[in-house]
Amino acid sequence: MATMEPDFALARSLFDALHRIGFDGVGMTRASYDDGENRAHALLADTARGLGLEIRTDWAANLYMTLPGRDRLAPVVMTGSHVDTVPVGGNFDGAAGVVAGIALLAGWIRADCQPVHDVTVMAIRAEESAWFPVSYIGSKAAFGLLDDAALTVPQRDSGRPLAAHMAQAGGDPSNRVTAAVLAPSAIDCFVELHIEQGPVLTETDMTLGIVTGICGSLRYREVVVHGRYAHSGATPRAYRQDAMAATARLIGMLEATWLAIEAEGGEMTLTFGVCRTDPRQSDFSTIAGRVDLSIDVRSRTPSILERMDRHIHTAVTAVEAEYGVRIDLGTLSGSTPASMDAGLQDDLTSLASELGFAARSMPSGAGHDAATFANQGVPTAMLFVRNANGSHNPDEAMDFQDFVQGTELLSALLWRRAG
Amino acid sequence: MATMEPDFALARSLFDALHRIGFDGVGMTRASYDDGENRAHALLADTARGLGLEIRTDWAANLYMTLPGRDRLAPVVMTGSHVDTVPVGGNFDGAAGVVAGIALLAGWIRADCQPVHDVTVMAIRAEESAWFPVSYIGSKAAFGLLDDAALTVPQRDSGRPLAAHMAQAGGDPSNRVTAAVLAPSAIDCFVELHIEQGPVLTETDMTLGIVTGICGSLRYREVVVHGRYAHSGATPRAYRQDAMAATARLIGMLEATWLAIEAEGGEMTLTFGVCRTDPRQSDFSTIAGRVDLSIDVRSRTPSILERMDRHIHTAVTAVEAEYGVRIDLGTLSGSTPASMDAGLQDDLTSLASELGFAARSMPSGAGHDAATFANQGVPTAMLFVRNANGSHNPDEAMDFQDFVQGTELLSALLWRRAG
Repeated sequence: MATMEPDFALARSLFDALHRIGFDGVGMTRASYDDGENRAHALLADTARGLGLEIRTDWAANLYMTLPGRDRLAPVVMTGSHVDTVPVGGNFDGAAGVVAGIALLAGWIRADCQPVHDVTVMAIRAEESAWFPVSYIGSKAAFGLLDDAALTVPQRDSGRPLAAHMAQAGGDPSNRVTAAVLAPSAIDCFVELHIEQGPVLTETDMTLGIVTGICGSLRYREVVVHGRYAHSGATPRAYRQDAMAATARLIGMLEATWLAIEAEGGEMTLTFGVCRTDPRQSDFSTIAGRVDLSIDVRSRTPSILERMDRHIHTAVTAVEAEYGVRIDLGTLSGSTPASMDAGLQDDLTSLASELGFAARSMPSGAGHDAATFANQGVPTAMLFVRNANGSHNPDEAMDFQDFVQGTELLSALLWRRAG
Repeated sequence: MATMEPDFALARSLFDALHRIGFDGVGMTRASYDDGENRAHALLADTARGLGLEIRTDWAANLYMTLPGRDRLAPVVMTGSHVDTVPVGGNFDGAAGVVAGIALLAGWIRADCQPVHDVTVMAIRAEESAWFPVSYIGSKAAFGLLDDAALTVPQRDSGRPLAAHMAQAGGDPSNRVTAAVLAPSAIDCFVELHIEQGPVLTETDMTLGIVTGICGSLRYREVVVHGRYAHSGATPRAYRQDAMAATARLIGMLEATWLAIEAEGGEMTLTFGVCRTDPRQSDFSTIAGRVDLSIDVRSRTPSILERMDRHIHTAVTAVEAEYGVRIDLGTLSGSTPASMDAGLQDDLTSLASELGFAARSMPSGAGHDAATFANQGVPTAMLFVRNANGSHNPDEAMDFQDFVQGTELLSALLWRRAG
């Protein structure tokens, strides 16, 4: 393996270049199908071309960088991740998986090791649904799973539809084929390396995580609580329709149910990441007439997602009655939980042990494109790299030495499948 | 009295002109010591000058419009209110009291009725503390009660200090005298007409309200709940520092205390008019790392304000411990409750009865400059005019016929004191 060591100098230079592309003054902002992601894809394609990899894109502007195998008809071994970020996010969420794939193929090429199977690093578009409220846009598109309706969804900043952004990014949504670009039967496996986005590896002093399954989600991204603006001093409680007090009660009721589910041993998260009174009309001396709220529920257990959805509706009805407000939940979106391939998990465990790396099994609370592959029947695995301070914020901090171990383990697994 | 009828055509034209000055596309925005208020003061001064009233301003750019009496040494009879608005407010909150004063003096002049005492209509600056977080700026300044520190407070939009806005509005804060402009002993009485800002008159089918007392307030306008941004799916509950969940709990705890105080017969209001996650960093898939919140408590009972302040501190400590957040309450501001003069209340009650107007006694939940006059020992009264839809919003709707009755009652009282 020593001779096949990934090209970590290349990896460092790619992280630096991605940082220059994304830095917004505070953190990383590489918006999906927008300048940041587009420039990152151009950087990756140039780099891969320089290494002699085959470059291909599809109608959704996903990028495929392939090291040809000796048997080009054998099922392709795939890896990859995404390079978009949430607004003011970090540099490694997503990018680490793509950089790892390119760095390890560069190592194989440098060592003159050609595999039997093709090996493809995929830079998947639009994984961060912060920009377009649709889960897994790029990977769904590649498998022919993206609803036509999704193409009309507006981007959160530009307001322009997804199809327009795709076309500007070099995609061709108007000429998309109904058949999928990727066929599950032609894929040997998909393995995604990703930073851990929570504190579990750090807290348990492990370097790498071998993912058992990926949470599904239940999301009401644009809840509106309609109350009535009124003077804060002159309006007795009985006459109020206070959107903020109602919102706080709704949050409290849902949180209580979360605690109950956890007490019963259920696994779930519940987050109200966006909650705001109207910046234009709100004032400390005015009862809030409107609050905008997001609700994000995640679990690996479909029945827990269903139970929470029922409870959200019950709580909304109760809060409407108690506070005289009207609550519009808006559109429900979400994703399906996915299980990782047992054989690949075993391979990762034994290879980590051979390499002397500290690895543990763990679920993924966050969603990943790997879920799309898994739910299409592709043997799929995920490898988490320890990362301080979580992700989706400017302080995410992956130790490069941990990335080295993750990339070496990924390289070993892909070589075992493709070599 | 018929010959002394207020000039209601003039009143209508003043309301129309104020509407043109303040309309922002949705409601009225006449910011304190800014274009809107300045233009409104210029309109009032021009109108008063045209009526032959004496015009005077003070160092804080308050405007005094005086009908000279036959005995210029007799204590002055005062009325008036303010013409600034909250952002996107209504046309009558404040303005009605100034327009009423000018209209009734115009009626006296038309009827050639000169009073014994001087009668002054005061257009008081900056009553809406939405713009500068200080209560009763104009009336405090007139009585020499405004802290020097208040002059450095920045305006919420421009960021420039109060003193700079005052100077631009024609005031002279750098040459302010330490002595007061208004001396309580030289004032016979102050009577403020104002729209009701709550639903009490409408709900009880009365036209006019005779105010018994004015609530004091307790305000933390800029509370910051500091949590930690983290991925919504990948961060189990035990590792969270969720600023939004903490905020909802804080609101819930304070609301529970409000209900307890009401159950014991206490009078109070509690409002969280501003509550927002950071628009730049918040996202549905990110745990909130920061929430900005306002807390507004009002009561006529000082001990209730003190009890709530103690409870706010207790609740903050409890929420910090439960959610691992840090809560910065920021600066405490507020105002002192005030009682209205019993003799003036009796006069209003008997005059309303003589005129055949439906009037009732009621407290004022909102603060008014009348509280400054009352707390300086000036015999003070307030007269509420029925108004639909509350105030501090674009939908406030005072029926002009109700304004007619209010102005006639005000005219009768002022003539009784000055005539």
